[in-house]
Amino acid sequence: MTNPQSPPTALDLPMVDPLPEATQKYFDVCTEKLGMIPNVLQAYAFDIDKLNSFTAMYNDLMLGNSEITKLEREMIAVVVSSINRCWYCQVAHGAAVRQLSGDPVLGERMVMNYRTADLDARQRTMLDFAAALTTSSASTSEADRQALRDVGFSDRDIFDIASVAAFFNMTNRVASAIDMQPNDEYHASHR
Amino acid sequence: MTNPQSPPTALDLPMVDPLPEATQKYFDVCTEKLGMIPNVLQAYAFDIDKLNSFTAMYNDLMLGNSEITKLEREMIAVVVSSINRCWYCQVAHGAAVRQLSGDPVLGERMVMNYRTADLDARQRTMLDFAAALTTSSASTSEADRQALRDVGFSDRDIFDIASVAAFFNMTNRVASAIDMQPNDEYHASHR
Amino acid sequence: MTNPQSPPTALDLPMVDPLPEATQKYFDVCTEKLGMIPNVLQAYAFDIDKLNSFTAMYNDLMLGNSEITKLEREMIAVVVSSINRCWYCQVAHGAAVRQLSGDPVLGERMVMNYRTADLDARQRTMLDFAAALTTSSASTSEADRQALRDVGFSDRDIFDIASVAAFFNMTNRVASAIDMQPNDEYHASHR
Amino acid sequence: MTNPQSPPTALDLPMVDPLPEATQKYFDVCTEKLGMIPNVLQAYAFDIDKLNSFTAMYNDLMLGNSEITKLEREMIAVVVSSINRCWYCQVAHGAAVRQLSGDPVLGERMVMNYRTADLDARQRTMLDFAAALTTSSASTSEADRQALRDVGFSDRDIFDIASVAAFFNMTNRVASAIDMQPNDEYHASHR
Amino acid sequence: MTNPQSPPTALDLPMVDPLPEATQKYFDVCTEKLGMIPNVLQAYAFDIDKLNSFTAMYNDLMLGNSEITKLEREMIAVVVSSINRCWYCQVAHGAAVRQLSGDPVLGERMVMNYRTADLDARQRTMLDFAAALTTSSASTSEADRQALRDVGFSDRDIFDIASVAAFFNMTNRVASAIDMQPNDEYHASHR
Amino acid sequence: MTNPQSPPTALDLPMVDPLPEATQKYFDVCTEKLGMIPNVLQAYAFDIDKLNSFTAMYNDLMLGNSEITKLEREMIAVVVSSINRCWYCQVAHGAAVRQLSGDPVLGERMVMNYRTADLDARQRTMLDFAAALTTSSASTSEADRQALRDVGFSDRDIFDIASVAAFFNMTNRVASAIDMQPNDEYHASHR
Repeated sequence: MTNPQSPPTALDLPMVDPLPEATQKYFDVCTEKLGMIPNVLQAYAFDIDKLNSFTAMYNDLMLGNSEITKLEREMIAVVVSSINRCWYCQVAHGAAVRQLSGDPVLGERMVMNYRTADLDARQRTMLDFAAALTTSSASTSEADRQALRDVGFSDRDIFDIASVAAFFNMTNRVASAIDMQPNDEYHASHR
Repeated sequence: MTNPQSPPTALDLPMVDPLPEATQKYFDVCTEKLGMIPNVLQAYAFDIDKLNSFTAMYNDLMLGNSEITKLEREMIAVVVSSINRCWYCQVAHGAAVRQLSGDPVLGERMVMNYRTADLDARQRTMLDFAAALTTSSASTSEADRQALRDVGFSDRDIFDIASVAAFFNMTNRVASAIDMQPNDEYHASHR
Repeated sequence: MTNPQSPPTALDLPMVDPLPEATQKYFDVCTEKLGMIPNVLQAYAFDIDKLNSFTAMYNDLMLGNSEITKLEREMIAVVVSSINRCWYCQVAHGAAVRQLSGDPVLGERMVMNYRTADLDARQRTMLDFAAALTTSSASTSEADRQALRDVGFSDRDIFDIASVAAFFNMTNRVASAIDMQPNDEYHASHR
Repeated sequence: MTNPQSPPTALDLPMVDPLPEATQKYFDVCTEKLGMIPNVLQAYAFDIDKLNSFTAMYNDLMLGNSEITKLEREMIAVVVSSINRCWYCQVAHGAAVRQLSGDPVLGERMVMNYRTADLDARQRTMLDFAAALTTSSASTSEADRQALRDVGFSDRDIFDIASVAAFFNMTNRVASAIDMQPNDEYHASHR
Repeated sequence: MTNPQSPPTALDLPMVDPLPEATQKYFDVCTEKLGMIPNVLQAYAFDIDKLNSFTAMYNDLMLGNSEITKLEREMIAVVVSSINRCWYCQVAHGAAVRQLSGDPVLGERMVMNYRTADLDARQRTMLDFAAALTTSSASTSEADRQALRDVGFSDRDIFDIASVAAFFNMTNRVASAIDMQPNDEYHASHR
Repeated sequence: MTNPQSPPTALDLPMVDPLPEATQKYFDVCTEKLGMIPNVLQAYAFDIDKLNSFTAMYNDLMLGNSEITKLEREMIAVVVSSINRCWYCQVAHGAAVRQLSGDPVLGERMVMNYRTADLDARQRTMLDFAAALTTSSASTSEADRQALRDVGFSDRDIFDIASVAAFFNMTNRVASAIDMQPNDEYHASHR
């Protein structure tokens, strides 16, 4: 069963009906675990190949193995989405920061101005890199990579930080392009 | 066999060795068909899950079924990459525009300033949308989507245009973050 | 009695001690009505003349008579503060939008991207004017004023809209300059 | 008696008539001392509460006690107004810099490009802070405040510098929003 | 004889000594007619070929035959120089606008914000074109040229407007690069 | 004989016919040496004085004596033209970089993102200065000039670097204003 709310985007692209068995099962797991099917999944479900390539990349980047913690990946997600002012991603991933950190104010700081947060040098450098990659990627230099190494990040960590920041520069633009609406459940959660 | 040139990125992340059989086969096909293994594949090959999720999304977006022609998708790729001044993507996809169009000047125009190209309203509106999504996605409005519909694009087409533009906003940033170098073969091809 | 939290700004400017009777009385009213003394008042209380001129202007603009509703004035406050990414004002006035509207999502939209909100032409034109005045006041023209008149605003309304937008362009900068911290009570309120 | 020139703004908001006694007295003092009633006062005089809260804040900030000299406050005013390209404030406060400094070229430098002026480190740091607060307040950091302390400013001085810079970010926007015209007398004065 | 003031630029590039006869004669004419040798000429006089190519182009553009009046060319010069915040050119050509127009306020408006001036459609369109060419030449389109034609400009006029705007985009950068100082005589002239 | 291709600009400004003898001779030399008459010369040939002042300045700056090599001057030309996204100048001078350097990739790097090129400190500082002069000349300071001196440039070299960067800020704008088209011959040359 899918979300009875208004359609999740401005485009008239209904979900495949019926959904393939594997997709339905995945959506059922979402409903069970999260209490909802995130609208982004419904938005992509008009084409199962697109849904699958999106979820494969998302799950690898945000849930796979990495020295960058899941909370840190969500912090990057929100900082990037805040710069791009993506409604969907600020709402959904702002909630994730509140949940994973147990610190509702941290989620607000990532949305409103991460520079006001009292972070250690490691996390601050990480977020500065993600922000610069969002606003001015053409100027990235070896000095920027070295700044990450200087606070303890490995080359693999740099790849992961860059990949998460870059991924949200993609999804922010898809979401804004089609006016994707986040599930209402996110707003009040973990306040 | 892999590229004997200098390492494809600024990060010390060697490819899995030996490559899994399926990956090796994929790379062999590249060598046979393209005369090279694109460096982006080598750059991701330190982690086969990441390589696979990247290629799945890339192949769906750039080679899958769509009313947006493969040339038009490459034109979007270059316009986005030019705004972001991504060295790798301007080189590799500039070559693709030259190849698919048979018009070497068109490739140069996409790199240098797509606004100088003599395009029909459909393609011009498509590229203007991709450019605006790159520079100012937060301002996307229903009027922008309607402008695409007014020149004949369907809602599915809008999704495809947005997805390709968004994807290169991701890959441009990964490439710039890690200083990814394109294969030398691209430069002289289809001039 | 004053806020036992950490000091409200990065400057070492303690409040006048003891406070003049009238100020103490005003702060007592705040504590009684709001359950707190807003930190901005504490930040200015090192100099009672500055506190008084600030509160006189604030109260006239935000609480005085105007055809612009108190909710609309708070919406302008948040839109301006979001563009300027002022931590204090987004938190405090975001809460006010949630409270006055009874719509927690509206407060989030004003913070994250007011362009995604489903507003009528009157409110949208009002916020577009406030946003443009924030980012590019030098380009304001008679056409911008006429756009406000065309959706029903009087010249007095234009003055009020401009004054509120301009006032937050002032307070945002004071708050950011001295790293003013909002009271914790705002974060969870009216969610 | 009021200014016989054309109306001082683009809005049809005539002054209260007759003016309250205290206001008339204040305007008479202006005429006597300055040879004119500054148009900004006439522009606010449609509502005496607004006029009073504006003049209270203005007089405290620009004429009250502070370690920042009156000339320095006017220099900040002009630098901020130049960035915002406010016609009224560049004219009126440019004249004030010429008058207070006895250096007509200094007034021109503040209007045209303060970076070309040969200032000591104290004043240059002060103006750089005011300029940065105008263009990018969200990035203000402790390092910026420390830079002010390093050239001798106290925390109270920082508050004053920030307050003046912030105030003109307000008045510039009110003036541009309503097309406020400066009195002609300013142009030729102290050349 | 040359200017006894401080050196006209930050570079140690003394004038050829003695000057060639033709140059000395040209400088003598300047002294006689203008009461000074403009510092820009002294700045170039370390190399007579450079001086000659600069003056040939300057004289053709600013003093040669054109349907664009000399005052209009000076207005373009100041608008461009104001956007680029060139100290030398705002001072020298601001004085020229005051002199040629007999309207000291017009010179100030061109320096401070040309959009506040009450110009006819022809001059406003001309200055908007010059401003856009300065800030965003890559976006110039046939619609921009047509807008000029619609208010009565010929193709030759368009060339002349573009050439003057472009020329000051050159000289502004030379002057800022070497910190060129205008002659003091300009400041008080024609106020 | 002149170029039989389509007219070189969007303006209807035919060449003087017949050309003066000296001009015809100059064009004949171009045809003989370059195999074409560069379209920029044809674009200016509607007015021989303008053509002559343009070629005099061009030849002095790009071909005259200077410690900045001809290749380096062309590198500056392309970096500036890339920032301004001038179609004509990126094509024509990109070809010149390929020709003079014998390195086709270097020409591409200057067009696409000079920051990715592996340059020595001298050339990198030179191009950073040219780029900053293009995007933000108002902020040029003694520190920027000193940075050039620190890598070995003399004051005369600084003048030459600034002059070339400034010149292309002029020609880029003329070319974009009138939609100047480069000769087709450039595209395939020296690949």
